[in-house]
Amino acid sequence: MEGRLSERRRRLFSGASFSTALFFSGAIGGESESFRYFSGCSVDGCCLVLRKNGGVVLAYEMNYKAARAASHYSVRLLGPDATKALRKACGRGKVGFSSAEMSAARYLALKKRAKLKLVDAYEKIGAVRGRKSREEAAAIAAAAKITRRILEGLDPWKHRTEAGLCAHLKIRALEESCALSYEPIVATGANSRFPHHTPGNAKLADIVLVDFGVKKDGYCSDFTRCYFRKKGTKEEKAYLACKEIFGELAARLPECRNGRDVALLSEKLLAKHKLPAPIHSIGHGVGLEVHDYPHLGRKSTDSLEGAVLALEPAAYFKSFGVRFEGMVANTKGGWKLI
Amino acid sequence: MEGRLSERRRRLFSGASFSTALFFSGAIGGESESFRYFSGCSVDGCCLVLRKNGGVVLAYEMNYKAARAASHYSVRLLGPDATKALRKACGRGKVGFSSAEMSAARYLALKKRAKLKLVDAYEKIGAVRGRKSREEAAAIAAAAKITRRILEGLDPWKHRTEAGLCAHLKIRALEESCALSYEPIVATGANSRFPHHTPGNAKLADIVLVDFGVKKDGYCSDFTRCYFRKKGTKEEKAYLACKEIFGELAARLPECRNGRDVALLSEKLLAKHKLPAPIHSIGHGVGLEVHDYPHLGRKSTDSLEGAVLALEPAAYFKSFGVRFEGMVANTKGGWKLI
Repeated sequence: MEGRLSERRRRLFSGASFSTALFFSGAIGGESESFRYFSGCSVDGCCLVLRKNGGVVLAYEMNYKAARAASHYSVRLLGPDATKALRKACGRGKVGFSSAEMSAARYLALKKRAKLKLVDAYEKIGAVRGRKSREEAAAIAAAAKITRRILEGLDPWKHRTEAGLCAHLKIRALEESCALSYEPIVATGANSRFPHHTPGNAKLADIVLVDFGVKKDGYCSDFTRCYFRKKGTKEEKAYLACKEIFGELAARLPECRNGRDVALLSEKLLAKHKLPAPIHSIGHGVGLEVHDYPHLGRKSTDSLEGAVLALEPAAYFKSFGVRFEGMVANTKGGWKLI
Repeated sequence: MEGRLSERRRRLFSGASFSTALFFSGAIGGESESFRYFSGCSVDGCCLVLRKNGGVVLAYEMNYKAARAASHYSVRLLGPDATKALRKACGRGKVGFSSAEMSAARYLALKKRAKLKLVDAYEKIGAVRGRKSREEAAAIAAAAKITRRILEGLDPWKHRTEAGLCAHLKIRALEESCALSYEPIVATGANSRFPHHTPGNAKLADIVLVDFGVKKDGYCSDFTRCYFRKKGTKEEKAYLACKEIFGELAARLPECRNGRDVALLSEKLLAKHKLPAPIHSIGHGVGLEVHDYPHLGRKSTDSLEGAVLALEPAAYFKSFGVRFEGMVANTKGGWKLI
């Protein structure tokens, strides 16, 4: 673990404009994945102060013992004047943080009360976390394998409603000792035209869209499958076109260097198959978070080196929507489906 | 619904220093509970611009149709220049927002790019949401009833490990058509001394602490029970003392006006029972979020009017910890256990 953590520190501080970085772990239920990534442990309500050569975890009394038991870095107890202790631990230099993983309340307090010189290192932190190690890619592949097995064994119409099928998927994840990457989406009939539909009491109709991923050892997976009661319908044809686009896109990823290239290529492929212009991104990086670095979009210069992606070509019409989503990993040997 | 929403608007803007308020709903899986509270609906990736006399929901194309189907306010499509549209919708006056429910990234973008005059209305929003309507108190009581039933029917030692018992609790919530208020805590043996222990593969020992709550129709519950294989141990005695303190505290809540009063009273009661000084708060408000307004602590002037509270007297020792947590609601007739 020590080697892995020092490698992550090295990449974070290489060429950085800050000499210290600051990560917080969330309150109960919440998690800051960068805290986990850079500390190597997962404890509530703590702060990690990181430098090139090491780090220290600051913990309130409530979490102090748990932090001592779990942390690879030394742990310091936060007394009543936490602001002062934090300022002391950070020193006078510039302090990197992730604006996406910090509340505005915390940001304002650190700036005004602790008077830290904060530098938004969101992009840099994303780029470090985005390039997956072999162990991380393997953890994601393990989560992906379990998700595919659950989705391939699924007979939606054994369940009555969207909510019923959704509960079944959650139980399947628990049976596999997994958490959820996100709340599963189950959308039937016309509900399938809403990309992020919330499963309700709608009775399962002839088309069922399932967007589902499990989390194994902290790492996410993300897949979408559509199920059809009748073969050869226009709904099924649109779905098969999305599946074909997924395959073409995955095969041509070696042509792409960054998020923009993937977005442009996917637009071309959707047009070639005469599908409507997309209303959401073609996909996203996947890691400790289900929406992870790199971002895939027309403006994204995010690198694809070492990336794990979910690709999700989709088509939304007036009365229904379809989407096929699968995952690919960029390893030293090129791209492979996972 | 319209009456309920206009009442919420009235309370939000009464005496406020801002003329507009801004709420965002989270990305997939995330939720901003204030968006839900003030819009009356739950749709991904939208923005609610609220004024005293009404409001408008702004939605990207991806969520536009879903927002139209769910929202009580009119819905406007966000085109490519979302910043400009947002600035136009907010006008030139001061704009209230909740710093606890907004990422620093969004805060910085709204301030720098949209040039909004942001006012942190976190306290005000909390106070509005904290005073529960009869319907809200009933929803919380319904969630509480289900949780108590699950915990009272529990025989922990039918399960082998912390993680196994935790999975069982999650399945029980699903069987009751409920979500989780938070990730359940199951801690056995010495793990019980960590207030927010993460359930692992530890085999269930003679003491098992379970902190668990279900969410029904968006509203949370929060309970803790300890289970003992042997009666009359020092562990069980400490637990029964916590249970007694809970009862005394609940009975004496009419003496308290605010969060500070509850904190001071609980300190007195813990000392009377010769339990160690607490390492976490005596409790918290409960609502759409499990940690909701009011805050209970020495510095809190938060009002208890219409509040629903979780109270959790606890005692942590070197080799174990115990906690008893139950819920109370402040109705017009006084305080009652739920």
